[in-house]
Amino acid sequence: MSLSGTLLSRFEAVRRATAMLAEPLSDEDCCGQSMTDASPVKWHLAHTTWFFETFVLERFEPAFRPFHPAFRMLFNSYYNGIGEQYPRSQRGLVTRPGMDEVHEYRQDIDARIESLILIAASPMGAAAPELERLIELGMQHEQQHQELILTDLQHLFWHNPLRPAYWAEAMPPASPPSAMQWRSFDGGIVELGHQGQGFCFDNETPRHRQYLEPYAMASRLVTNAEYLEFMQAGGYDDPALWLSEGWAWLRSGSQPISQPLYWEQLGGAWHEFTLHGRQPLQPEHAALHLSYYEADAYARWAQARLPSEAEWEHAVVSTRRGLNDGEPADAPPIEQVYDTAWQWTSSSYAPYPGYKPAAGAIGEYNGKFMVNQYVLRGGSCVTPPDHSRATYRNFFPAHARWQYTGLRLARSL
Amino acid sequence: MSLSGTLLSRFEAVRRATAMLAEPLSDEDCCGQSMTDASPVKWHLAHTTWFFETFVLERFEPAFRPFHPAFRMLFNSYYNGIGEQYPRSQRGLVTRPGMDEVHEYRQDIDARIESLILIAASPMGAAAPELERLIELGMQHEQQHQELILTDLQHLFWHNPLRPAYWAEAMPPASPPSAMQWRSFDGGIVELGHQGQGFCFDNETPRHRQYLEPYAMASRLVTNAEYLEFMQAGGYDDPALWLSEGWAWLRSGSQPISQPLYWEQLGGAWHEFTLHGRQPLQPEHAALHLSYYEADAYARWAQARLPSEAEWEHAVVSTRRGLNDGEPADAPPIEQVYDTAWQWTSSSYAPYPGYKPAAGAIGEYNGKFMVNQYVLRGGSCVTPPDHSRATYRNFFPAHARWQYTGLRLARSL
Amino acid sequence: MSLSGTLLSRFEAVRRATAMLAEPLSDEDCCGQSMTDASPVKWHLAHTTWFFETFVLERFEPAFRPFHPAFRMLFNSYYNGIGEQYPRSQRGLVTRPGMDEVHEYRQDIDARIESLILIAASPMGAAAPELERLIELGMQHEQQHQELILTDLQHLFWHNPLRPAYWAEAMPPASPPSAMQWRSFDGGIVELGHQGQGFCFDNETPRHRQYLEPYAMASRLVTNAEYLEFMQAGGYDDPALWLSEGWAWLRSGSQPISQPLYWEQLGGAWHEFTLHGRQPLQPEHAALHLSYYEADAYARWAQARLPSEAEWEHAVVSTRRGLNDGEPADAPPIEQVYDTAWQWTSSSYAPYPGYKPAAGAIGEYNGKFMVNQYVLRGGSCVTPPDHSRATYRNFFPAHARWQYTGLRLARSL
Amino acid sequence: MSLSGTLLSRFEAVRRATAMLAEPLSDEDCCGQSMTDASPVKWHLAHTTWFFETFVLERFEPAFRPFHPAFRMLFNSYYNGIGEQYPRSQRGLVTRPGMDEVHEYRQDIDARIESLILIAASPMGAAAPELERLIELGMQHEQQHQELILTDLQHLFWHNPLRPAYWAEAMPPASPPSAMQWRSFDGGIVELGHQGQGFCFDNETPRHRQYLEPYAMASRLVTNAEYLEFMQAGGYDDPALWLSEGWAWLRSGSQPISQPLYWEQLGGAWHEFTLHGRQPLQPEHAALHLSYYEADAYARWAQARLPSEAEWEHAVVSTRRGLNDGEPADAPPIEQVYDTAWQWTSSSYAPYPGYKPAAGAIGEYNGKFMVNQYVLRGGSCVTPPDHSRATYRNFFPAHARWQYTGLRLARSL
Repeated sequence: MSLSGTLLSRFEAVRRATAMLAEPLSDEDCCGQSMTDASPVKWHLAHTTWFFETFVLERFEPAFRPFHPAFRMLFNSYYNGIGEQYPRSQRGLVTRPGMDEVHEYRQDIDARIESLILIAASPMGAAAPELERLIELGMQHEQQHQELILTDLQHLFWHNPLRPAYWAEAMPPASPPSAMQWRSFDGGIVELGHQGQGFCFDNETPRHRQYLEPYAMASRLVTNAEYLEFMQAGGYDDPALWLSEGWAWLRSGSQPISQPLYWEQLGGAWHEFTLHGRQPLQPEHAALHLSYYEADAYARWAQARLPSEAEWEHAVVSTRRGLNDGEPADAPPIEQVYDTAWQWTSSSYAPYPGYKPAAGAIGEYNGKFMVNQYVLRGGSCVTPPDHSRATYRNFFPAHARWQYTGLRLARSL
Repeated sequence: MSLSGTLLSRFEAVRRATAMLAEPLSDEDCCGQSMTDASPVKWHLAHTTWFFETFVLERFEPAFRPFHPAFRMLFNSYYNGIGEQYPRSQRGLVTRPGMDEVHEYRQDIDARIESLILIAASPMGAAAPELERLIELGMQHEQQHQELILTDLQHLFWHNPLRPAYWAEAMPPASPPSAMQWRSFDGGIVELGHQGQGFCFDNETPRHRQYLEPYAMASRLVTNAEYLEFMQAGGYDDPALWLSEGWAWLRSGSQPISQPLYWEQLGGAWHEFTLHGRQPLQPEHAALHLSYYEADAYARWAQARLPSEAEWEHAVVSTRRGLNDGEPADAPPIEQVYDTAWQWTSSSYAPYPGYKPAAGAIGEYNGKFMVNQYVLRGGSCVTPPDHSRATYRNFFPAHARWQYTGLRLARSL
Repeated sequence: MSLSGTLLSRFEAVRRATAMLAEPLSDEDCCGQSMTDASPVKWHLAHTTWFFETFVLERFEPAFRPFHPAFRMLFNSYYNGIGEQYPRSQRGLVTRPGMDEVHEYRQDIDARIESLILIAASPMGAAAPELERLIELGMQHEQQHQELILTDLQHLFWHNPLRPAYWAEAMPPASPPSAMQWRSFDGGIVELGHQGQGFCFDNETPRHRQYLEPYAMASRLVTNAEYLEFMQAGGYDDPALWLSEGWAWLRSGSQPISQPLYWEQLGGAWHEFTLHGRQPLQPEHAALHLSYYEADAYARWAQARLPSEAEWEHAVVSTRRGLNDGEPADAPPIEQVYDTAWQWTSSSYAPYPGYKPAAGAIGEYNGKFMVNQYVLRGGSCVTPPDHSRATYRNFFPAHARWQYTGLRLARSL
Repeated sequence: MSLSGTLLSRFEAVRRATAMLAEPLSDEDCCGQSMTDASPVKWHLAHTTWFFETFVLERFEPAFRPFHPAFRMLFNSYYNGIGEQYPRSQRGLVTRPGMDEVHEYRQDIDARIESLILIAASPMGAAAPELERLIELGMQHEQQHQELILTDLQHLFWHNPLRPAYWAEAMPPASPPSAMQWRSFDGGIVELGHQGQGFCFDNETPRHRQYLEPYAMASRLVTNAEYLEFMQAGGYDDPALWLSEGWAWLRSGSQPISQPLYWEQLGGAWHEFTLHGRQPLQPEHAALHLSYYEADAYARWAQARLPSEAEWEHAVVSTRRGLNDGEPADAPPIEQVYDTAWQWTSSSYAPYPGYKPAAGAIGEYNGKFMVNQYVLRGGSCVTPPDHSRATYRNFFPAHARWQYTGLRLARSL
């Protein structure tokens, strides 16, 4: 298949996958917004489309005309270089355009992008590399929003006492996890960041060196059963376990926080609210929906710590390559890397040495958020398959819990 | 037609009128909530139904079973005597039940109420008077929510930069108002409050006496043209015209307030956002969407004042009866009483001497709100016909503007 | 003694009394501010002086020069007609001028006012009546601040875990109150508001008529023992007893409110923080430091209500004159009128019919606060003797508790 | 002089220096608190004393009795291991104990510490090393508060429209700075963190290795003149220069931020509020009172960046040792390291690899703040002489501006 054929079919697949996420939902479900940090499903459907319209069509389409002039502001997330933005906290008030019109919007932009792809593939397609680069970015961007569609919807449904289920089928049982083992790494000068031809976001570059002291990392994530031990040992009541800011965060709402988000006790038994509705807590499952503060406190209680992002990346890369000296040759790799939960690292989100954001508005994609956030590595059970990689840097503020955020322990050797 | 026949047909008419209000709207439109004080259309549809289910069926239906157990909490507005309430600020997050299920809810309760009405009309209908009284209250309650459906929806649409129109047809032009004239009243001991057989809310009772000094009232409401004069004379910039709390209110948001709600300037011309969408401001139309603070400031600027609710009621009753001594026999009545805008009075909302709320949860309907609110009298262009009367007491906090609130001047003689 | 002699000696006495209130206090005590509604003692000392400087000297002193140009803004409370005001919430940050300089300020202005009084008393003193009127107003104003000095200081000391005492001497025991009796009044058309030559504030005028239904009032205030019964009967936990806004107010802070301000339990026994420090709660003493919401809830629980201000004034005037028809000639007067606690009435603070504030900035004294506040009548144990009278209208928002606010029951007959 | 003699005289010197800072101030000045992050001078005087009482006397004094039982809570800053703390935001309300009593407190604790020092120096002084370590920590702690006394007082005085001066004498003119030059460093594996016998805080340990890419650092700090250029070039109006959170921070108050803290324009000329009162802005002086956001935005505008803390420390250590390869032998050292302003680094405050806080409450000194703060290096004109060093890690949240915070540029090579 030709390059444009590949791009075309991938584009169609990504766009279709997004639309399919909305299928089990009513128009009302798609319009609700439960907090400023979360957006309505409909907004995600429109914003990902706006991204292609604004960063691809507006630049490459010969006689570009916007689908609707008001959408430029309505569906601009945070690009000051593009112009004004509709207030983020009010996205749930945008009942018009309705879902029907947003679907039309998607179809219109899809058709126009597909035309561009076909033209670019022709011998006259001089702009092809830059065009393809931006379409690729748009697809990766859309995959990020596919995960957000699910996490934001779950947060919305959490506010509904009916505890609706997004997925009608029963929740699959967690497989019993293997016993937790410590994997050791020698450290030294290691190379970090993306290399090679594949796609990456600008924040994964440039590749650079870093010095690591010897360390060990847990072979798997902390489980619900282990986290419950922490709770039952009074973890939420002992200030010595918490960062000062975390201790204050526990008490910052109308009710003190004393368990992960989405956990609730019913008749004495712990349950967890999921996309399958409310479910009995599965002890073997990885603990999810933890803030950085909670992950840090648990680690301190367990006499361990969070890994740095460099340690995490090095461990994953070493594991894959089987280069982890000092381990027996048949050591199992580190588990639950991409398929379970994003893993908090101790690293504040910052530019790599020599980092340069792209020119223009697209440069606002990542760089301007590099303060007061923490890096998460890996991927989760709601991350699109093949979206993540060892160098991928996810990031959220320390209090964020509505993502699938879990915890892998580390310690210095 | 028999009494039960009358009640039945009125019940059906009121319920149908509510449902018809939602017809031009999408399910999304019906789910949005723009502020804590306003509720989604769907919530209004469900809550008015909940009112009949809770206060009528639960009491009178022999084998009562709730339509859905969770609705008791979800659609309870503020009746502590019934139990917990879903947080008011989060009503826009209730995407389930969806509109379809709420329509089923309405139909189910309607059928059951209608059965009760027919039974009550039978010779065995011993509970008829109390049953009829509560159904009547439910219908009056529903008419109040019919008005709120429109005002809350307008507030929601105001947050949408597309400025959607609820009514597709063009806005009818305002008829030129008659010249404003002062109508004089002698005062003395007057009787206020409801009397007779017709329905009234408990806050209109008991009928009692009050002493009034001589006063005059304006024959019509203040117009947009007149209010613009106040604005152009610097009314919003002169603290001497404002109550201290009103002056602070003007500056309490991110932008200082300098015009009524829903007014905006486009290309130098004033426009008003209405249920017909954005419209050029009609100079002859009554000024709407004023807070108590604005009404009070305008009146001070105009060397007048707001009428007390007693003055307003006496004037309206006198007018109707043609008993307004000292006026020529052919004096035109006071205009724009029920059909244009609710009219702020200077009266803080308080119980009449001897007022007693009903026993039980239904007693929470009116009485518990009698603090820090101001009485509005009359009715508006979105009040259901025949819903209001001379003794009707509407009430809102001094800063409220999203209702159809206007201003009639008064002065002491 | 001549009129000017009288004025002079009264002026000196009032000013001296204010200064004496600060004598038991350190400079630090005089500078602290515990909330926006309360002001530092030093600010009161300076502001009352500013009042004479601004409203008397600036107008009547031939070659007026301000004591310090910055004081015009620093010590202006809320007079927009005078100009800008230093932010009320930051008064505790004004460590300069220090107490020494504020005492100099007082002495300077005192000497200049005294000179004016002597000149005005001369045959050339043409401006005498207006001058005397404003000096009288300044003295009355200063007496209001004498009470605020004590209430604001008590609120400041309440934040200090050392529970400091302002008065070193022991708290005098409350005399056992007489048994509570209901006094009946016929109502009818009554006259209200100030009349005669004595001083009054503009809000007590004009004298006007009002119609009252028959009513009864309690012979004394509700006691601590009685209020404790309400608490022990679950008064703070039963929403049916509270105004909706009051019920929300109970839960508006970080801890729910469940007793009057300044009450605390130590070793199971109730104590009250007073200007004598922390004291065991005296059962016979009038319950103090109640909000309007609490007074209203207690009254509802006691199957009574708050009196209107008209009922209160009529009862007090009738009592004094012995004109209370239908009572035996030897009926004891209503007790605890001026010497115990300000008494919440059910009346929202509003202008009397025909009320006109004074022209100019001085007109901001009372009128601009006539919204969302409730009238208190009587006087308290920290009100300067002879400051209050039957027509006096004190006013505070419904949630205010740091004044000496108590409760007298009323009911309709 | 013996060791104990040295310790004794240093202890006396540090304690005296703190007391002397309060000498130009009135008792009122010492009690005011302008924001939660700043504390009253009196609180600093008491808290530093509390530190010695709690962490030294309570542990080493044979028959320890607290000076005042209530001080344990009143003057505990944030040590949960010690117990409850008086609310930080209310420290300005603690008018009792007064300054006199706090001075007595200081003298009492001083005498008792001095006795301990003398005993420890005796042959029986077995506990001497740990005792001396804690006294040393207490002195270093007190020096930190000496700086805070001045910065917190300046912030308090900034709220006073009289713009009081702490230092009566005129502000010394800034010497013209040398021309800014870029100093280059090769990077590679460098060692960071404290080594040797001298005192350091636990957060400067353990010494460890880090890999640095080649970089350059500015020879001096950014000046006021340079910062004004940024402002005049529209730096505060261009979102492309700001972190997203910084751009929001500029607009988070009632007025948008458009200049450093303490800057104000008078008659068109820029002034800066200082401890010498309001002064014309000195163009040659280092720009002070910048937030991390402002420092970062300036650096981006100047096509540079902030140094990491590792880069900063390595540059300072290299410079001191003259080991900066590639620079001419007569290169001037990096200037304005310790005597002008703390210098924002790009490094989020985090534990060094292998960091372990001390056991017990004293372990709360530094470690629990290692989240969402940024490291500042160097020292300022109000840092006590000899208090800082190359490995010293100061830290504040990104929005903090009331410290003497400036900016040294860096760039990658």
